[in-house]
Amino acid sequence: MLENLDLDVRMEKEEWDAVSDGLKQKLGVLQQRIRALKIPMVLVFEGWGASGKGDKISRLITNLDPRGFSVHSILAPTADERRFPWMRPFWQALPTYGDTAIFDRSWYRAVSVARDEERLTRRDLNHRFDEIVDFEQQITDDGYVLVKFFFHISKKEQKKRLKLLDDQKSTRWRVTKADWDHNRRYGEYLEIFDEMISRTDRHNAPWTVVASTDRRYATWKVFTTVIGAMEQAIERKENGYEKPFTGIRVSDDIKTLPAPRLREIDLSVTIAEDDYRKELKDCQKRLSELHNELYRRRIPMILAYEGWDAAGKGGNIKRVAAALDARGYEVIPIAAPTALEKNHPHLWRFWNALPKDGHVAIFDRTWYGRVMVEHIEGFCTDEEWGRAYDEINRFERGLAEWGAIILKFWLHIDKDEQLARFTDRQNTPEKQYKITDEDWRNRDKWDDYEKAVDEMLLRTNTAYAPWIVVESNDKRYARIRTLKAIIAAIEARL
Amino acid sequence: MLENLDLDVRMEKEEWDAVSDGLKQKLGVLQQRIRALKIPMVLVFEGWGASGKGDKISRLITNLDPRGFSVHSILAPTADERRFPWMRPFWQALPTYGDTAIFDRSWYRAVSVARDEERLTRRDLNHRFDEIVDFEQQITDDGYVLVKFFFHISKKEQKKRLKLLDDQKSTRWRVTKADWDHNRRYGEYLEIFDEMISRTDRHNAPWTVVASTDRRYATWKVFTTVIGAMEQAIERKENGYEKPFTGIRVSDDIKTLPAPRLREIDLSVTIAEDDYRKELKDCQKRLSELHNELYRRRIPMILAYEGWDAAGKGGNIKRVAAALDARGYEVIPIAAPTALEKNHPHLWRFWNALPKDGHVAIFDRTWYGRVMVEHIEGFCTDEEWGRAYDEINRFERGLAEWGAIILKFWLHIDKDEQLARFTDRQNTPEKQYKITDEDWRNRDKWDDYEKAVDEMLLRTNTAYAPWIVVESNDKRYARIRTLKAIIAAIEARL
Repeated sequence: MLENLDLDVRMEKEEWDAVSDGLKQKLGVLQQRIRALKIPMVLVFEGWGASGKGDKISRLITNLDPRGFSVHSILAPTADERRFPWMRPFWQALPTYGDTAIFDRSWYRAVSVARDEERLTRRDLNHRFDEIVDFEQQITDDGYVLVKFFFHISKKEQKKRLKLLDDQKSTRWRVTKADWDHNRRYGEYLEIFDEMISRTDRHNAPWTVVASTDRRYATWKVFTTVIGAMEQAIERKENGYEKPFTGIRVSDDIKTLPAPRLREIDLSVTIAEDDYRKELKDCQKRLSELHNELYRRRIPMILAYEGWDAAGKGGNIKRVAAALDARGYEVIPIAAPTALEKNHPHLWRFWNALPKDGHVAIFDRTWYGRVMVEHIEGFCTDEEWGRAYDEINRFERGLAEWGAIILKFWLHIDKDEQLARFTDRQNTPEKQYKITDEDWRNRDKWDDYEKAVDEMLLRTNTAYAPWIVVESNDKRYARIRTLKAIIAAIEARL
Repeated sequence: MLENLDLDVRMEKEEWDAVSDGLKQKLGVLQQRIRALKIPMVLVFEGWGASGKGDKISRLITNLDPRGFSVHSILAPTADERRFPWMRPFWQALPTYGDTAIFDRSWYRAVSVARDEERLTRRDLNHRFDEIVDFEQQITDDGYVLVKFFFHISKKEQKKRLKLLDDQKSTRWRVTKADWDHNRRYGEYLEIFDEMISRTDRHNAPWTVVASTDRRYATWKVFTTVIGAMEQAIERKENGYEKPFTGIRVSDDIKTLPAPRLREIDLSVTIAEDDYRKELKDCQKRLSELHNELYRRRIPMILAYEGWDAAGKGGNIKRVAAALDARGYEVIPIAAPTALEKNHPHLWRFWNALPKDGHVAIFDRTWYGRVMVEHIEGFCTDEEWGRAYDEINRFERGLAEWGAIILKFWLHIDKDEQLARFTDRQNTPEKQYKITDEDWRNRDKWDDYEKAVDEMLLRTNTAYAPWIVVESNDKRYARIRTLKAIIAAIEARL
């Protein structure tokens, strides 16, 4: 692919002078419209060392309003970043709707330079490619404009440029040993880049390979490509284009397991008071030991709690948390998204809340809000809802691939039990803060929620992130059930 | 101080059993009220290794709603953290109003363990103490409840505990070489801790030294101290206590320089078109070289832009940014604070936006909003306004101490020039987005703003963070003036 590119293509000064002012002006005007329409953009600059990525970024942003974009230089991950999933920095850097993020090197570093440096296995490399494709699919589905440049120069041209930089005192520090090494092993790197491009060149996220020998031509190519992408996005938005709803999306590569339906759950199970006290003590002691082991071996754990209002999530979480070392866990309550969160893809805020390796994150409500309350209340479109299943499954697959133990609990009670608890809360002064009008409104939609939960269990129950429906009419029984499930999952891993 | 503490104090089991249930219940109830009243809490756990900090934190949080707090374990700063001011992680970890942050070790690590490890000079140590006192003053002024524990045990007791941990396979990893080293050098560390406590024991942020030989006693001490602090804070809030306004606060330790008054500025200065083109090119070339040097020497730079509406901030910033390497700067537009930002001290969002060392942050409007728009529009109380000058001066002093070059620009135009520009914007279709009703409303308050700006220049003009009033009736003149000031400041440093 790269080999066939004509690297000698040039643009004469007169040609450039004739069009440059117009292009620059257009960039500025289009950016204002992009911002006004709240369209987010992600621009990726990849390519050989000294191929002119930095120069092109500078030329581009000189023509943009500096308040609307940020530039991210991607180097090898820091020690801190290595304790999280490798895609996390890129999720965190996603621009707010209406803003632009420019990446000088990007997630593609992980499948090019890092692939070589870390001597990645083929299996790990494949997973990284999968995650890149998933990520780009999600953000483009979400309305992000994604433009990916690869700046290509010949081995000889690169050598010439490195030498020029190396010869000048003020620029010498920019040339690293790695740069020279890549130049020596140009052929190997050509294959690496070729594979990188061909495996991630998709309709929704195409590569623009730029012959970068001639600066004017390369600049022209960047300007016109960005302008084209902006014009297309503006046209779509202004014409009110919406992706059609094509049903619930669960791709073939996600292997879901059978799941129970809520109606089949036997809620009559109970535990005697004495047994409860003994079991609780034993379980907490065991979990406490196991948490030490997780910490020592740097295994992250993610506990996701969902369930009916008043099903006992708070008390259940408290019993689990009490067994954990305070320095190694966090409880993350999930409420309605903030304005900032609404201006990002729905999974963004969960990426921001992931635990470090060796730590435990307990989510009190989760990313499943999208296929429950947000779907039922109409806070997302049907199309967004339909693809959320795939997005969630892939999110969890990435976490499992990273090494996380993932358990998802649905705390289940029946309608009568909920009524009894609501009434009790209403009538007990110190519990009144726990019950709101919204709880009553949700209760009226019990059947809608039951349908949504059944769908969720069916579509997102996987071996690496299983759902456990916890019989919770007896709160004590539920707590022991949850603790035992967590203990079993950790023991299975160790 | 520590030497005089009676370490043999104990609590018998019967005593503890008689009060423990009551204390636990009280903690839970008070936490709910604290949350409802939106009072934030910061609890600091310091002390010897193996003195039981972690155990006390666990016992405390078992009785709290896990959705309302986070626990931060403070270790040596990571490589990434070392590229920012040392207090930044603690600012970032400040809880939202109504939440609680618990620190297992804290900013005090920097003046105890790190002081020893890094062989800090007396000068640097003094600065760290200053910054700690400033920080604690700011957050307690802001309404945070701050409780600081120091857990004290004898050399013999510590040795016994370390041995016990070391003997068991499951806990051995918790004991480090440093722990044993501190035990051997107990006397030296006693002096270090003593100085740490005595220099930071203030009325607004007192230390509670806990004799930690006996676990029951230490737990009781922690519970009752936290309960007492919560009760006091609740009472104040419920009784509507407000700190009185005592005027503008600028402490003696801040050396301010003389500053011009806006009326004295000669706005008739201009530059000819040809000179402008030449100077712009020369300045940008020079700044570009200097930016390389800053990057290489890892010197951070902070450019703060303030000025009248339509004074030309955007265009000015653009000319500066065009000279910088895209990978090494960021423009940070400051708008009205978000809901999250409003639920933190006013400087919090600026701590979150600081540049790495070697990078440039350009703030388009700044932390001076508090003493201008927020004061004039009544978005903060007079008391908050009065102490903001001190807070801002200290914030900037800390940044300068870290090594940052700081320049603050007031882009100045007169009232007639503003009217001409507003009218031009109104009448030019592609500029209309730049003019809003708010601009006109602000214009009506010109005199109030002028008074506020004069006050600001007078109170916050310092050698390490000087104000430069930029004559901006001629935009081109203003751009060259700014570029030259930046160049001069960098040259003076290098």
